[in-house]
Amino acid sequence: MRFEAFAVKNIPFIKKGDDIAQIICERTNILDGDIIVIASTIVGKAEGRTFSLKDIVPGQDAIELSQHVRFPPAFVQAVLDRSKECLIPSPVLLVEMKNGHICINAGIDESNVEDEMFLDLPVNPDASAEYIGKRIESLTGTQISVIITDTNGRAFKRGQTGVAVGVYCIHPLKDWKGQKDLFGKELKITEEAVADEIAGASNLLMGEGNDGCPVVIIRGLKLRCEDNASVKEMYRSDNEDIIKKCLLRDRTQR
Amino acid sequence: MRFEAFAVKNIPFIKKGDDIAQIICERTNILDGDIIVIASTIVGKAEGRTFSLKDIVPGQDAIELSQHVRFPPAFVQAVLDRSKECLIPSPVLLVEMKNGHICINAGIDESNVEDEMFLDLPVNPDASAEYIGKRIESLTGTQISVIITDTNGRAFKRGQTGVAVGVYCIHPLKDWKGQKDLFGKELKITEEAVADEIAGASNLLMGEGNDGCPVVIIRGLKLRCEDNASVKEMYRSDNEDIIKKCLLRDRTQR
Repeated sequence: MRFEAFAVKNIPFIKKGDDIAQIICERTNILDGDIIVIASTIVGKAEGRTFSLKDIVPGQDAIELSQHVRFPPAFVQAVLDRSKECLIPSPVLLVEMKNGHICINAGIDESNVEDEMFLDLPVNPDASAEYIGKRIESLTGTQISVIITDTNGRAFKRGQTGVAVGVYCIHPLKDWKGQKDLFGKELKITEEAVADEIAGASNLLMGEGNDGCPVVIIRGLKLRCEDNASVKEMYRSDNEDIIKKCLLRDRTQR
Repeated sequence: MRFEAFAVKNIPFIKKGDDIAQIICERTNILDGDIIVIASTIVGKAEGRTFSLKDIVPGQDAIELSQHVRFPPAFVQAVLDRSKECLIPSPVLLVEMKNGHICINAGIDESNVEDEMFLDLPVNPDASAEYIGKRIESLTGTQISVIITDTNGRAFKRGQTGVAVGVYCIHPLKDWKGQKDLFGKELKITEEAVADEIAGASNLLMGEGNDGCPVVIIRGLKLRCEDNASVKEMYRSDNEDIIKKCLLRDRTQR
């Protein structure tokens, strides 16, 4: 068992309307089974998802919340507009986005964007992954998978990691159910978060700065699926998420 | 930028006293800069850290807690003995271990161990990583890094991933501080959890079952450090961990 991971070199600065699939295919040779890992920043830029705070009128909630974070009320309003629920209001804004993804600031990015501008995640990252994936397949005649990634913090530990926010032709969880351990006992761990593991592996090559590589190819893992896949398979239901329940109780009680 | 990841084949069933470093070096060619990723299960076995519940007398706390989880009082007592704090008592036992690692069941494993026996994590995983790392270096004349891994769940999302629980000659966090983005602005994301990203990448090849590969080599990343490294660099202080504080408040109030 082995795989290799490599960054696609010389991806240009991406602008609204750019054809990310074609840009990738012109710069590297895609093979059957490759997993194409793409930073959400360039997907958001190609989809034109930059915005300015000047166009946002903050409401009362946003004005109050902004007193506890380092962001202006209009930014907080932008976060709330994209969220179903605010789980932690301060010192950071941890929210559950409308599609179920839990992250800081609703994934709004101020790095690698022009001054005064902010960048959204793709609104439907699974659909973005499918769009790019199908276009790569049609340009190359291959069958591949796509993972769109963001960089997130995590509970209990310092440091950010790459995580999957959208997928095409790869299930985010690999099911080990029914498999046996070395002694023939049924395994207790039944779901491996393979898409996040791949996103983290790719982040090792992507970097964060001005020499960043927003596209990484993972070659050698046999994880392509034929049926519909969605990052939502990874998100816990409200009822099974004990930490989320606790955070919401805490907000009510304070 | 590229790296490759491959599993070391034919690692035998590990018993107490086995020389893991030698077993690895006999089965693969180690190069300078390689990161040797080792599942904590085989480190625990080599260190003889299996135990039976028969030797444990549960106290009142363990007896009460065991009514809310699927484990007997003696198992709960074993978890509490290894923990500084119980963060979530039910339906799973989420604890902070004495070394600061937060996980379910204090990392006690019942998979891949003989019937009725349980397996502990190494008590000082950084020291275990250093011991194995220095021995590999001395056997091969190379300079390498070691990461000892476990498989953990995470907050807010289904699925388990590989995480680093002990390191040798690799810092768990890579600091991007002071680096600039594409537009010359200072980066907001300053710490990347590289050891956990590598642990996750390796987990893609390790598997969980009876055909599992407990040792993976990561080749091509330039992350070896000369100074002392510890997984503790990753653990949040009590004061900065907002989710932990919230879980503890919740326990007190209920």
